[in-house]
Amino acid sequence: METAILLLSCTDARGIVAKISQFLFANNVNIEHADQHIDSETNTLFMRIEWALDGFAIARENITRELKPLVDEFNMDWQLYFSSDTPRVAIFASKHLHCLYDLLLRHQSGQFNCDIPLIISNHPDAYGVAQNFNVEFAEFPILRENKIEQEEKQIDVLQRSNIDLIVLARYGQIFTKSFVDQFANKMINIHHSFLPAFVGQAPYRQAYTRGVKLIGATSHYVTEELDAGPIIDQDTVRVSHRDSLKDLRRKGEDLERVVLSRAVKWHLERKILVYNNKTVVFD
Amino acid sequence: METAILLLSCTDARGIVAKISQFLFANNVNIEHADQHIDSETNTLFMRIEWALDGFAIARENITRELKPLVDEFNMDWQLYFSSDTPRVAIFASKHLHCLYDLLLRHQSGQFNCDIPLIISNHPDAYGVAQNFNVEFAEFPILRENKIEQEEKQIDVLQRSNIDLIVLARYGQIFTKSFVDQFANKMINIHHSFLPAFVGQAPYRQAYTRGVKLIGATSHYVTEELDAGPIIDQDTVRVSHRDSLKDLRRKGEDLERVVLSRAVKWHLERKILVYNNKTVVFD
Amino acid sequence: METAILLLSCTDARGIVAKISQFLFANNVNIEHADQHIDSETNTLFMRIEWALDGFAIARENITRELKPLVDEFNMDWQLYFSSDTPRVAIFASKHLHCLYDLLLRHQSGQFNCDIPLIISNHPDAYGVAQNFNVEFAEFPILRENKIEQEEKQIDVLQRSNIDLIVLARYGQIFTKSFVDQFANKMINIHHSFLPAFVGQAPYRQAYTRGVKLIGATSHYVTEELDAGPIIDQDTVRVSHRDSLKDLRRKGEDLERVVLSRAVKWHLERKILVYNNKTVVFD
Amino acid sequence: METAILLLSCTDARGIVAKISQFLFANNVNIEHADQHIDSETNTLFMRIEWALDGFAIARENITRELKPLVDEFNMDWQLYFSSDTPRVAIFASKHLHCLYDLLLRHQSGQFNCDIPLIISNHPDAYGVAQNFNVEFAEFPILRENKIEQEEKQIDVLQRSNIDLIVLARYGQIFTKSFVDQFANKMINIHHSFLPAFVGQAPYRQAYTRGVKLIGATSHYVTEELDAGPIIDQDTVRVSHRDSLKDLRRKGEDLERVVLSRAVKWHLERKILVYNNKTVVFD
Repeated sequence: METAILLLSCTDARGIVAKISQFLFANNVNIEHADQHIDSETNTLFMRIEWALDGFAIARENITRELKPLVDEFNMDWQLYFSSDTPRVAIFASKHLHCLYDLLLRHQSGQFNCDIPLIISNHPDAYGVAQNFNVEFAEFPILRENKIEQEEKQIDVLQRSNIDLIVLARYGQIFTKSFVDQFANKMINIHHSFLPAFVGQAPYRQAYTRGVKLIGATSHYVTEELDAGPIIDQDTVRVSHRDSLKDLRRKGEDLERVVLSRAVKWHLERKILVYNNKTVVFD
Repeated sequence: METAILLLSCTDARGIVAKISQFLFANNVNIEHADQHIDSETNTLFMRIEWALDGFAIARENITRELKPLVDEFNMDWQLYFSSDTPRVAIFASKHLHCLYDLLLRHQSGQFNCDIPLIISNHPDAYGVAQNFNVEFAEFPILRENKIEQEEKQIDVLQRSNIDLIVLARYGQIFTKSFVDQFANKMINIHHSFLPAFVGQAPYRQAYTRGVKLIGATSHYVTEELDAGPIIDQDTVRVSHRDSLKDLRRKGEDLERVVLSRAVKWHLERKILVYNNKTVVFD
Repeated sequence: METAILLLSCTDARGIVAKISQFLFANNVNIEHADQHIDSETNTLFMRIEWALDGFAIARENITRELKPLVDEFNMDWQLYFSSDTPRVAIFASKHLHCLYDLLLRHQSGQFNCDIPLIISNHPDAYGVAQNFNVEFAEFPILRENKIEQEEKQIDVLQRSNIDLIVLARYGQIFTKSFVDQFANKMINIHHSFLPAFVGQAPYRQAYTRGVKLIGATSHYVTEELDAGPIIDQDTVRVSHRDSLKDLRRKGEDLERVVLSRAVKWHLERKILVYNNKTVVFD
Repeated sequence: METAILLLSCTDARGIVAKISQFLFANNVNIEHADQHIDSETNTLFMRIEWALDGFAIARENITRELKPLVDEFNMDWQLYFSSDTPRVAIFASKHLHCLYDLLLRHQSGQFNCDIPLIISNHPDAYGVAQNFNVEFAEFPILRENKIEQEEKQIDVLQRSNIDLIVLARYGQIFTKSFVDQFANKMINIHHSFLPAFVGQAPYRQAYTRGVKLIGATSHYVTEELDAGPIIDQDTVRVSHRDSLKDLRRKGEDLERVVLSRAVKWHLERKILVYNNKTVVFD
């Protein structure tokens, strides 16, 4: 069943929800899901509505036009998606391949509504995995002196493959501002700590040294500032003095897989809205 | 700010949400919260709408009458509440008083929008706590031969106190069907296991004997069948071979407090709908 | 570094620990790990001692003989392992292959000290996975009328492969008592519920119908009675009314992977003692 | 049953454990609990041994003398406690009284082996609670200009009450280095975040602003540097965009209670060793 998904946010005002409902009802909508949230601190309304296109009075190609008066009246930020437009995802990985493997297996088992046509790496290690899953593999070794140039080539490949979403599956390189800006809210990273603790390099080593009793993982959209983008999901697991640094890594990898895959799934299902460097997740 | 809260459920059909929205908008509603859920297995719609009475075009006492055509059209189950109608709660306890204490402290700190005018027990142990918190204490010792008679006296006291919700805070007695029927979906129990495991007596002992690695607690509405009513909330905590039965009890008590208090809070905020012996919780 | 691991349990008595320590010290031991637990209900002592063989005064092949007087004096149950004896593991799977994949990937990444030379299934689905990881695949379709015969053939294959541990990675068949008896405490199963809730068929369906707010997974040694063996590990994850049966399955699979792999890892590291249908896990 | 508890740590060396065992066994010890841990990064051994004094060959007052050669040989850090020496605890609180209440109730229910003779505050709010539980209440209002003077008075009161452990139950003041130094590893604080995230003032507000999906609580020993002492316990709970700052506070308070009380219990049972600004907790 094909559906349309409307995500919107705007300053809350009396009657917005009713007007949207009226618009949909007047056009014979059959709502599958409807979620809303009012952030009372900023008086902002967030909505996600998903409805079946079958029977809807407006043709798919005209929905945007018909919505225009409504979204203009309330000065809405809005996005419209169709479930039949399968997003195209590129995964970036380096040497730790557990998240890459996990994403590919979940995709294979039908958990993600997307295509994964491309794997990019700064190392050759993921080549075999890419082959196993019949995905194109592009290697761009990064040195300090060639980073900008290599990023430009990566963008070339990403554009040729019509990539909608980049997933950084323990990719070890930091992007330039220019790269990040081109994929605003379209690049998801997994950081192996409960942010904002242990930003940057070697978070398990940092956690081990600090003697924490929980380790965590955080999936977030990438922004210019390192590990400071809107958080999508987090989870933690208990550790003790008996756990070596190696144990922390092993336990953490289980968190990373789950926390990253949830973020990817929610993004693909258009369940995430970003505002104020935070996320609303209609899970 | 006074609000009205409408809970409703019905067979889902095209246009229901829009019609409700239209009704509200036509009467100048200012929505505070709106949640909905469609159970696709049974094709049932659940809604919770909370709106400010200030500025609403229909007088509080006429809302029910004005809603009637709408709810009749779709054959809705529905309940209407006003935030200014403070629910009156009676707590039943026996000899384990940690949940009783916890509820009274949360009430004192403003977490619960309710009055707690009455504590009932089959033992004298809670008398001092009741006095500390200035709550009426009624003791009804229960013997096999006087149970029905004592329950009738309890109902008397409950009715005289205009009780809307009964909370069983580790109350050790089982009620007759007749008693339970009078408080359908208005009696919350805490059971000290992750139901449906370890129904009935001594669940910590059962858990200890079985050698589980997690213990749990479950809050649920009481129904005729023991520990089989609609589950409102559950949680678990890790245990190991190092934990004695006494440790299980201590760890479990922390769960019980949290799991019971969440259920009470959600009930008081009218966030729970019951169907098919399950709950929808719009938390 | 090669180590010896001694697991023992016996009725507790004054001086046992000191006598064991003396024995080891007299032979110039270098202890790597030592754990003990006294179950005060049954007055049973459990110990696990791991020491480096390098420098130990007794030759590896004589340790058993030299220990004999000590273990006889206290009537100990005991097992002696050497880290250099790599256990050989067979994985049984059916149609749900996520646990199989997960075990193989963890093995590949070095998490498990074992060989995995054999995958057995009652269906052909896992054939491709076995090929990918270069593991022998043996298919034994099971019908009511050929079960005993097929089990005998399985035992043949298992013996020819010198299998020390069987892991049931969502294997869909129940074994006969005769089969189970041959692998007492050497066969680990993952059950997709928080046992003892939802024993038997379709636990996610059972959980969905009961309306629980947590789902779980349990790894345990297999005994004659279905899903009633000693529990090794359990975990739970939160679900809500928004989760469909399909969502429960997806969330549950993440639990299954972690809970099964922890059990396998602990078993391979000789960290589990079984008593009274429970486990002591020196993690 | 009276027990002795020996905590020790030292550079690991061959034979230490055996020598300690021999010493104990030679004196007819009956071990109740024995735990050990080797930190392989620093090659440090940690031990906790608890044994019954009944039947032990050395009189209580001579144990220290008899142990001396052993602890000197291995240059051990060590502490000896007797279960019959009931620790005396002072609780510091300010205006948030949930942790204070919780500690007093747990003490009342027998969870803590200690006396609580003293509550100290910089505000009058806790006076009623102190009265309810028959505990002496001492108020020391703190201004910038009188802090040192007031701390001196606090130390006077603490010394007169023979206080062994200070628990900061959401106490709002920061102590001077001089005060902290006098209670090294004898002052436990609860910080309402998962440290090292959100150090300092208003951690719930910081968490809310950052948009985290988990909030946490951390109990730790107080050191000179704010919120940087050895972590004893941590826990987290899930939050979402639906949770207001007030919800974060409410959910967090449930964590604070549990995380602080676990730390206090472990300290009182002499289960914590501190090293390298971390803790070993033999729970």
